[in-house]
Amino acid sequence: MKKPLLFAQELVKNTVKEGEIVVDATCGNGHDTVFLAQCVGAKGHVYAFDIQKEAIISTEKRIKSAGVQERVTLKNVSHAKREFWPQEPLAAVMFNLGYLPGGDHAIVTKAESTVAALQIAINSLKQGGIITLVVYTGHPGGKEEYQAVRDFCTALPQQDFTVLEYQFINQINYPPLLLAVKRL
Amino acid sequence: MKKPLLFAQELVKNTVKEGEIVVDATCGNGHDTVFLAQCVGAKGHVYAFDIQKEAIISTEKRIKSAGVQERVTLKNVSHAKREFWPQEPLAAVMFNLGYLPGGDHAIVTKAESTVAALQIAINSLKQGGIITLVVYTGHPGGKEEYQAVRDFCTALPQQDFTVLEYQFINQINYPPLLLAVKRL
Repeated sequence: MKKPLLFAQELVKNTVKEGEIVVDATCGNGHDTVFLAQCVGAKGHVYAFDIQKEAIISTEKRIKSAGVQERVTLKNVSHAKREFWPQEPLAAVMFNLGYLPGGDHAIVTKAESTVAALQIAINSLKQGGIITLVVYTGHPGGKEEYQAVRDFCTALPQQDFTVLEYQFINQINYPPLLLAVKRL
Repeated sequence: MKKPLLFAQELVKNTVKEGEIVVDATCGNGHDTVFLAQCVGAKGHVYAFDIQKEAIISTEKRIKSAGVQERVTLKNVSHAKREFWPQEPLAAVMFNLGYLPGGDHAIVTKAESTVAALQIAINSLKQGGIITLVVYTGHPGGKEEYQAVRDFCTALPQQDFTVLEYQFINQINYPPLLLAVKRL
């Protein structure tokens, strides 16, 4: 059984076609950015957000060494700012919440801005498109963020969206879990 | 995103090899029985339980019309009786809880016997083997059975088992959910 991070990628891979426009809402160290760039191919485009300069630099290195930098636009601003999102309908938006691995653990995504960004993602999603959120609950504020995001997702109308929760339930150290939203 | 029933089959299909021994703990109308018989091939075997004669008859028809009756043994007894289970290590055990579709809705699987059968399944599972439980919470007793099964699964030691919960969380009419247990 795939871990939530890998299952998120599987869902996105099964959804996104070459040439489409996607968003990495939390680029972090750039793993999902490169993954998304490979999904959309040379004719597609990835917009990748992070508020930390350190994450942008790390992602820039990674996309260059993967040779996909021309199909990625990095944005060193909050994903909660609508004006920095692309105008096109999106095939996928990936979130990986919490803190930057290897970075300052005090800098974390927060319920209010995450839900604001999720609302932008919902509004921007094309028919058949998918949003994935890998959620961490082990750090201070993590449980509250999870609850806010889950409440938001649970309230999405079932005639327009399917929301999946995918989690390992017998592990003690707060493993990440996945929420995935598909527009019907 | 696959519905829980289909995702259960995908997990089983990715696990079971030809020639292996598996159990359908609740054969019902025989859909999973036929599916399992196709997974194990002509050299494997499926043991299929149901307490209702009606379910056994329905499954018998379905395995005959699929031409797989020689690789299936039907057992018209409770899955909670250890002595009727095969002795061999099992590659997969599938449960589909609740009532028989099209049958008497008052006859349902119950927390105590389901957990007893699940314990037998756990003890019989080979390394790498998988148990899937499709769980319904909309009928009387359904929520209690779910809670009992979930509590049992959550307590499984993470060094030996991974337990996945897979559910759609924005649907109002109690959709089925999936619990899946993999022995490491």
